[in-house]
Amino acid sequence: MTLKYIVLFGLFAALPVMARTPAQPAPVSVVDEVFTSTILAQNRIGLDPERRAKVYLPPGYSTSGRRYPVVYFLHNAWWSPRQMAEDGRMQRLLERGFAESATGEFIFVVADFTGPTTGSLYENSPVSGRWLDYAVEEVVPLIDRKYRTLARRESRAVVGDFFGGRGALKLAMVHADVFSVAYAMHPVATGTGDIPWLSLEIDWPRMNAASSFADLGGLGRTQIFWAIHQAFAPNVSHPPCHCDFYVEMKDGKSQYNPDRVRAMQRTFLLDGTLPESAANLRTLRGLALDWGRFDTTQAHVVSNRQFSRMLDDLGVEHEAEEYRGGPFDRSFTDDGRFASRVLPFLQKHLEYQPASSR
Amino acid sequence: MTLKYIVLFGLFAALPVMARTPAQPAPVSVVDEVFTSTILAQNRIGLDPERRAKVYLPPGYSTSGRRYPVVYFLHNAWWSPRQMAEDGRMQRLLERGFAESATGEFIFVVADFTGPTTGSLYENSPVSGRWLDYAVEEVVPLIDRKYRTLARRESRAVVGDFFGGRGALKLAMVHADVFSVAYAMHPVATGTGDIPWLSLEIDWPRMNAASSFADLGGLGRTQIFWAIHQAFAPNVSHPPCHCDFYVEMKDGKSQYNPDRVRAMQRTFLLDGTLPESAANLRTLRGLALDWGRFDTTQAHVVSNRQFSRMLDDLGVEHEAEEYRGGPFDRSFTDDGRFASRVLPFLQKHLEYQPASSR
Amino acid sequence: MTLKYIVLFGLFAALPVMARTPAQPAPVSVVDEVFTSTILAQNRIGLDPERRAKVYLPPGYSTSGRRYPVVYFLHNAWWSPRQMAEDGRMQRLLERGFAESATGEFIFVVADFTGPTTGSLYENSPVSGRWLDYAVEEVVPLIDRKYRTLARRESRAVVGDFFGGRGALKLAMVHADVFSVAYAMHPVATGTGDIPWLSLEIDWPRMNAASSFADLGGLGRTQIFWAIHQAFAPNVSHPPCHCDFYVEMKDGKSQYNPDRVRAMQRTFLLDGTLPESAANLRTLRGLALDWGRFDTTQAHVVSNRQFSRMLDDLGVEHEAEEYRGGPFDRSFTDDGRFASRVLPFLQKHLEYQPASSR
Amino acid sequence: MTLKYIVLFGLFAALPVMARTPAQPAPVSVVDEVFTSTILAQNRIGLDPERRAKVYLPPGYSTSGRRYPVVYFLHNAWWSPRQMAEDGRMQRLLERGFAESATGEFIFVVADFTGPTTGSLYENSPVSGRWLDYAVEEVVPLIDRKYRTLARRESRAVVGDFFGGRGALKLAMVHADVFSVAYAMHPVATGTGDIPWLSLEIDWPRMNAASSFADLGGLGRTQIFWAIHQAFAPNVSHPPCHCDFYVEMKDGKSQYNPDRVRAMQRTFLLDGTLPESAANLRTLRGLALDWGRFDTTQAHVVSNRQFSRMLDDLGVEHEAEEYRGGPFDRSFTDDGRFASRVLPFLQKHLEYQPASSR
Repeated sequence: MTLKYIVLFGLFAALPVMARTPAQPAPVSVVDEVFTSTILAQNRIGLDPERRAKVYLPPGYSTSGRRYPVVYFLHNAWWSPRQMAEDGRMQRLLERGFAESATGEFIFVVADFTGPTTGSLYENSPVSGRWLDYAVEEVVPLIDRKYRTLARRESRAVVGDFFGGRGALKLAMVHADVFSVAYAMHPVATGTGDIPWLSLEIDWPRMNAASSFADLGGLGRTQIFWAIHQAFAPNVSHPPCHCDFYVEMKDGKSQYNPDRVRAMQRTFLLDGTLPESAANLRTLRGLALDWGRFDTTQAHVVSNRQFSRMLDDLGVEHEAEEYRGGPFDRSFTDDGRFASRVLPFLQKHLEYQPASSR
Repeated sequence: MTLKYIVLFGLFAALPVMARTPAQPAPVSVVDEVFTSTILAQNRIGLDPERRAKVYLPPGYSTSGRRYPVVYFLHNAWWSPRQMAEDGRMQRLLERGFAESATGEFIFVVADFTGPTTGSLYENSPVSGRWLDYAVEEVVPLIDRKYRTLARRESRAVVGDFFGGRGALKLAMVHADVFSVAYAMHPVATGTGDIPWLSLEIDWPRMNAASSFADLGGLGRTQIFWAIHQAFAPNVSHPPCHCDFYVEMKDGKSQYNPDRVRAMQRTFLLDGTLPESAANLRTLRGLALDWGRFDTTQAHVVSNRQFSRMLDDLGVEHEAEEYRGGPFDRSFTDDGRFASRVLPFLQKHLEYQPASSR
Repeated sequence: MTLKYIVLFGLFAALPVMARTPAQPAPVSVVDEVFTSTILAQNRIGLDPERRAKVYLPPGYSTSGRRYPVVYFLHNAWWSPRQMAEDGRMQRLLERGFAESATGEFIFVVADFTGPTTGSLYENSPVSGRWLDYAVEEVVPLIDRKYRTLARRESRAVVGDFFGGRGALKLAMVHADVFSVAYAMHPVATGTGDIPWLSLEIDWPRMNAASSFADLGGLGRTQIFWAIHQAFAPNVSHPPCHCDFYVEMKDGKSQYNPDRVRAMQRTFLLDGTLPESAANLRTLRGLALDWGRFDTTQAHVVSNRQFSRMLDDLGVEHEAEEYRGGPFDRSFTDDGRFASRVLPFLQKHLEYQPASSR
Repeated sequence: MTLKYIVLFGLFAALPVMARTPAQPAPVSVVDEVFTSTILAQNRIGLDPERRAKVYLPPGYSTSGRRYPVVYFLHNAWWSPRQMAEDGRMQRLLERGFAESATGEFIFVVADFTGPTTGSLYENSPVSGRWLDYAVEEVVPLIDRKYRTLARRESRAVVGDFFGGRGALKLAMVHADVFSVAYAMHPVATGTGDIPWLSLEIDWPRMNAASSFADLGGLGRTQIFWAIHQAFAPNVSHPPCHCDFYVEMKDGKSQYNPDRVRAMQRTFLLDGTLPESAANLRTLRGLALDWGRFDTTQAHVVSNRQFSRMLDDLGVEHEAEEYRGGPFDRSFTDDGRFASRVLPFLQKHLEYQPASSR
């Protein structure tokens, strides 16, 4: 009588079952927004200054004449706005969310944070790009210029997943003047976790011998740390990485540099600068992070727990739910975190009305 | 410019701010339901067989003529239906939930699980009462007899908090024929945690010398374990506790009995019998547990994480959110777990229609 | 003034600095012991029945005429007695340990647990070999036959590292009649950890399509689980793996089989059968496990903590130290766990005298 | 056949079984050293400036004429040198350690860190005493003046348990010029743990209303935090506590002050100042901490794990073992941590010879 087989949802499946709303929700339209970034032109890794964002306009946009709040979505490293859009899932989640009143209508912008290595790690670096400046000085003004937005912090949210989740938190920490609502979906790099950096599985001889990021193909963690060094330990006069590794090879022996580790951890890992950002974060209208318990890199889980504890100690109001699931399998499913948690959170905290109308 | 003082919400505050819904929600009425339990009369600790439940009837109940699903709420040890009701908060949460369509209307029953020691730990025991039998053989039939209920599992949910959360899970594990939806709010006793039972702070000399539960007043954990022994290591011929302690004193020395610990852990801690209950749990329409990360007894937190992992391995669909907060401070606030998580979960999984109408 | 560079010991270095003992310690000799196993001949994965152990004889062995205790060392999967011996480190650690009286003299046997896939996972399986039977019925009798041993449990210890640590614990659990002292160095597979088996990064389509272990080359975890299935979910009539996968592909969809997971977890993970082995373990003269905190698979760490807690609850005396380090970097260094912890533990718990002489 | 009863060692027992060394070890003598502290006279809590240390002299002291290294032991809060000495256990552990060559001979000083509240939390405070200054400017010079010591850092160690463990680490962090070896036994206050300070079970209304430490009798954690405030948030012009609470009551409501929490956490919890102490710690000859896994305040365990990880990242060589046991039950037993780990550590790292003789 025991159930012998269970069709597997999760890792491989999670098909959208859209049947619950009988009526067809009104369509969200997706616009390609292409422009040239001046800021990103300054880099040493071959970033393409031509940027291709996807802008999702709510159903009534073309005829309503009114202004809308804007939600900026920061995609994960290795991803792109095109990839986020191509299976139509994001579009459908927004359509259903608007139709079922999970949230009021907003403009949804998936800006372009792609690059030739990992893509943005959401930091300013003279080597791998000033991504925070790009977001705030180029993307936001462009959207405000070209679309009917409610162009103020009360009506601007930033949402991101994984490395984009780091981005959402970071922008909230340093640009609470621009955004007032932030939701980080399974953010990473919020803290150190249980493993010291010398015990991370990084191939230092290969790292130090590599002539490029591509050279390290197949060495997952080693390759990522190449990019992390470029973002957080940049040194424009130290090619080919243009960075200073925290383990260097000398006469065939490795040398560990704890001061570099300290400096990198303080900037890469968000808990390092959190105390000095607390005043900013306390001004937010809404702040949330959530994460899946089953990330095989448990450091992400442990760090997010600690990050939330620190926010609490610092007196920063926020939500911090840890859910059943991995980093990716519950985010954009029909009943997933974006649909069931992010949209209602935006509804609750974003300002949907023009200042004058209140 | 730094915010110097923050008015404290949480431990001491959390005032209901009901302002969001301008219109007055329709009233929920609360009925006292008093009856005499035959099952609980069998005990050795002086349980009062007269039971006093609180039954919350939805706004339209008196005039609608229709039948309703029933949600049974299992209160924490040390609590009572009267205490749950006295500040009117539960009533208001239900009224608002019904008014804002967070959930369809149901009858809400807070049954009486009080007793002269801790109150129910939600288990059958010849010493401290057969509480599971009482719930299923007396409370549920009584409610079905006296109220217009949808008298079938599809329309019956069980919800509980802390020890009542243990009760909700346990009833789902062994009585999935009676309930099809279960939500455990910060359940305890789901697993062992990190501390062996010999390292728990229990005063064994006092425990073994005590002539009654009251004798152990002031010794928190020792007193609770008196009650746990009565529920999970009962021995009617061994007064005054009518139980067998897992540490006994002999010639002034303590003797540890690992076989008793093993037997008690297997029954008290829900993970011990979880595998054999998996088939039952897989038949549920909805199963959820959640818990606050900041329980100072971290064993509760660690155990709930593991319990969810076991459910996953056993192929039992469920939700398991760990939230920012302690075990008690976010449960019944206006925006708390009951309002924002439990009610929508009931809406999603309970059957609100009579079988014939589907 | 800050120290800028620190020469790195740990991951890459840890050279033996043998300078501390000025006098040359007396030499340990290493003997190749080759024999043909009958038991291992029964398998479906191409095990070579010819076995090549390394036997380390203490300095006085050739002339003393007396009998010695025996310490059996179980090497990690992927390793071999030859690899354990080839840099001479093990020999030097024993020589120094004997010379500095860290331990009394014993015969040290590194038996052959190699195989064409991962090598032994230290279990009996009709598919991948009856390794426990091989250890107890073939290796131990052979050594007792060919060397001057103290041929009784009081003078036999089993030590192993990583998968060999699992082996040491397992042999102690089921063959306390043969061994009375066990030390598991960074054992794995002692418990489940925090990640459900469906969230492990296993490529199920590739697993189900593979025609051999080699086919899965490069897919680390997937490949290991091929071997784990052969050991713990064997099915001789189900080629090519001769096992039943807990996720199978059907019409391009994966099907999860929780009953298989349950059965595999109960046997593969040592906590599953620990309670029924407690009586055996309580008869040991000495039991220890230790592990490095910085294993990037934190499940190993978490599981070992829980395993020790269970031993405690079961009344099994033992040591369980978690140390600073990874799974491999502190085991066989000069000041490492083997030298500073394992040898003194053997000294304390092994019986070095013949029964008659006491 | 199952072992039914096990005589309990651990919580209640742990009798010294001294039988292993047949010969009587040479006696250690204990001297009362009484003096008047000038530094501690400056305080607001009624510290007695008369101080009563216990000085343990090694067997050969009276006749050898030679100089000895000194090990300073920092007792836990609530304890005293007299209590440490009264059951003779410490004396016997030293005698056996010297006799069995676990360590070379040294002078062992248990200085007086008692006080009318909790006793020293091992910090300088204008309110509760400048305990670090007292240790370094009064105790050490006194001992060097009155006893034949090797009066230099290479021959000075500091060891402490629980709060004294905090003291040992703190002195190593800020006075590596005075001590070169440090061993912290189950130190506390090394980090924050998982619970935010607002969720600690502190009775703030009682705290704010109390007129003295004694007033809070029976409120364990609340009382300790009174003393913690006096040490880490002192304010001489704010009686009766002479401190600033991080939660204050205003109009019956509690007000949380995150800036105070931040400041207190940074100084009370050792990880707050660890990075700036790394250079000091790297100059030590030996640094170790250890702790029992079964502390019911798991924050101590979690924090020590993190503290060790930070030391690793900062390039500070150290040992950090987590053992089976609670904070107190394995420290001073015959086979406990002091005998089996601390003494050999001192042997290995202390300089026992005068500088000239090397």
